[in-house]
Amino acid sequence: MSKIRIAIAGYGNLGKGVELAIRQNPDTELVGVFTRRAPESVKLLTEGIPVYKLEDAKNYQDKVDVLIICGGSATDLPVQTPELAKYFNVIDSFDTHARIPEHFANVDKVARENNHLAMISLGWDPGLFSLNRVYAESILSNGKTYTFWGKGVSQGHSDAIRRVEGVKKGIQYTCPIESAIEAVRNGSQPELTTREKHERVCYVVAEEGADKAKIESEIKNMKNYFDEYNTTVNFISEEEFNQNHNTLPHGGFVIRSGKTGDGEQTNQTIEYSLKLGSNPEFTASVLVAYARALSRLKAEGATGCKTAFDVAPAYLSPLSPEELRAKML
Amino acid sequence: MSKIRIAIAGYGNLGKGVELAIRQNPDTELVGVFTRRAPESVKLLTEGIPVYKLEDAKNYQDKVDVLIICGGSATDLPVQTPELAKYFNVIDSFDTHARIPEHFANVDKVARENNHLAMISLGWDPGLFSLNRVYAESILSNGKTYTFWGKGVSQGHSDAIRRVEGVKKGIQYTCPIESAIEAVRNGSQPELTTREKHERVCYVVAEEGADKAKIESEIKNMKNYFDEYNTTVNFISEEEFNQNHNTLPHGGFVIRSGKTGDGEQTNQTIEYSLKLGSNPEFTASVLVAYARALSRLKAEGATGCKTAFDVAPAYLSPLSPEELRAKML
Repeated sequence: MSKIRIAIAGYGNLGKGVELAIRQNPDTELVGVFTRRAPESVKLLTEGIPVYKLEDAKNYQDKVDVLIICGGSATDLPVQTPELAKYFNVIDSFDTHARIPEHFANVDKVARENNHLAMISLGWDPGLFSLNRVYAESILSNGKTYTFWGKGVSQGHSDAIRRVEGVKKGIQYTCPIESAIEAVRNGSQPELTTREKHERVCYVVAEEGADKAKIESEIKNMKNYFDEYNTTVNFISEEEFNQNHNTLPHGGFVIRSGKTGDGEQTNQTIEYSLKLGSNPEFTASVLVAYARALSRLKAEGATGCKTAFDVAPAYLSPLSPEELRAKML
Repeated sequence: MSKIRIAIAGYGNLGKGVELAIRQNPDTELVGVFTRRAPESVKLLTEGIPVYKLEDAKNYQDKVDVLIICGGSATDLPVQTPELAKYFNVIDSFDTHARIPEHFANVDKVARENNHLAMISLGWDPGLFSLNRVYAESILSNGKTYTFWGKGVSQGHSDAIRRVEGVKKGIQYTCPIESAIEAVRNGSQPELTTREKHERVCYVVAEEGADKAKIESEIKNMKNYFDEYNTTVNFISEEEFNQNHNTLPHGGFVIRSGKTGDGEQTNQTIEYSLKLGSNPEFTASVLVAYARALSRLKAEGATGCKTAFDVAPAYLSPLSPEELRAKML
């Protein structure tokens, strides 16, 4: 069988992760990287893979089965995914939850018009956490679902810190509040406010002479990012920052606490959790598994846009249906 | 929209659980129960639902969208599911892992010949645990998967005990070995034998005059059930049995410990766990969610046999695709 030919658009942390995940999946191969930078300035981890200008991507349609778009959700993906769906079957990790219906509609339209298949909002949240919410709520229809994130680096919140005047370097860890998780696990179905579920811990290297009190106050009161949380801001040296804050761990928990039985008195708990040494490497691994699913669904004739909700688990696996039933069921 | 008309074949713990789960899902309704007992001797929890002889089931084909078969895996389901798939769209929870391919082939053939859709081996293991294994292994292709069960009552193993000559009552608890779970969570990817992961603890009420040594030996050496485990058999009085062993808790863990990144040095852990106050009530909740999926897939023209691997998550949910994307992604 021929390999699934994957290209990457955007070569940051996530793009590098996709490159590495392809190495772990022998039924896939990396055929090229598209970048907005000067192609000759981009050094891949893999020898012999061509780097092209993103604007020239459409010239390589025949070489690519699936294009994994690794841009940011704020400004890149809303433009790139519909545009590139004209020429390719595409996958992205669009994660602005509130704008997913709009993004879906845009991508679905273009993909259908061009007989392509697209999959959006893949990764772990949205993605694996989302589908665990759907499975758990479909099964335990009387219950409450809780999502906790962390302990881990939120790239969106770290970016937000770095935009504050006087901040040279900054990183933000989202931390779930342990007592809240325990209350959920014991079946009490507590009502928890945003502030009761997570706290935010920031490490900041200030520019020389910057007003630290002003930085701290600006971070803590930042709308949509920090204002609804208890936030701690720690000022540290650049040395300490570089030494202790150079990886991107993350993770979290989706917990469904439900009741079943006569009188709905029986506690039932479904918990899904991730402990990730590297968020972008893990997200990339999800994207590559869905690239396999995409190539199979496309071969069956599917077009338009899909999400994790629309893809049966078997499509993700390199094993055949017979092998799956014999070994995995 | 009309409700999904569900019938139950076999009214034991699982059948009762299905009856109760249907109450929690307003898009479903219970239309009848089929039993091998005298119908007039079966008292349902719900008023006004007819009880019929199982052998007459085929006379009620037009009244039923999905038949959930709640027999045991050892002897009932291998016969009942293929037979009833002649007349109905069927769901079962067949859980003898080693015989799934054979059961699948038998059910698939009959269902196709009769233009019906069947789903087998649903519940949590096989079922939710299976699909978590597939998701996790597809995403973290370099890694090891571990499944731990318990602490909880295994109905299959308890049934097996009760079939041993001289056993009046019997129950079996599967217990995961805690140190093994911790070793897995810390990313060390230990090699664990079957025996190192779980032990089996049985409580038996013997018939008067039965040969206890023979019962114990027969249980401990039973192929596919006990022979690969350290098993303890405790003989207790019927009073003690009735007082302390009258609920059916269960649960367990599926943990995938994987490595990603350059040199495959990054630890990534996916963990799925269940803590179930009642195993049959939970399994029944899974079956009813898949009954919803079955009725939708059948409406799309699907026939033959499917498992949890073949069903996209969206089919399980009462929400529309638009609602799912807006609220759950």
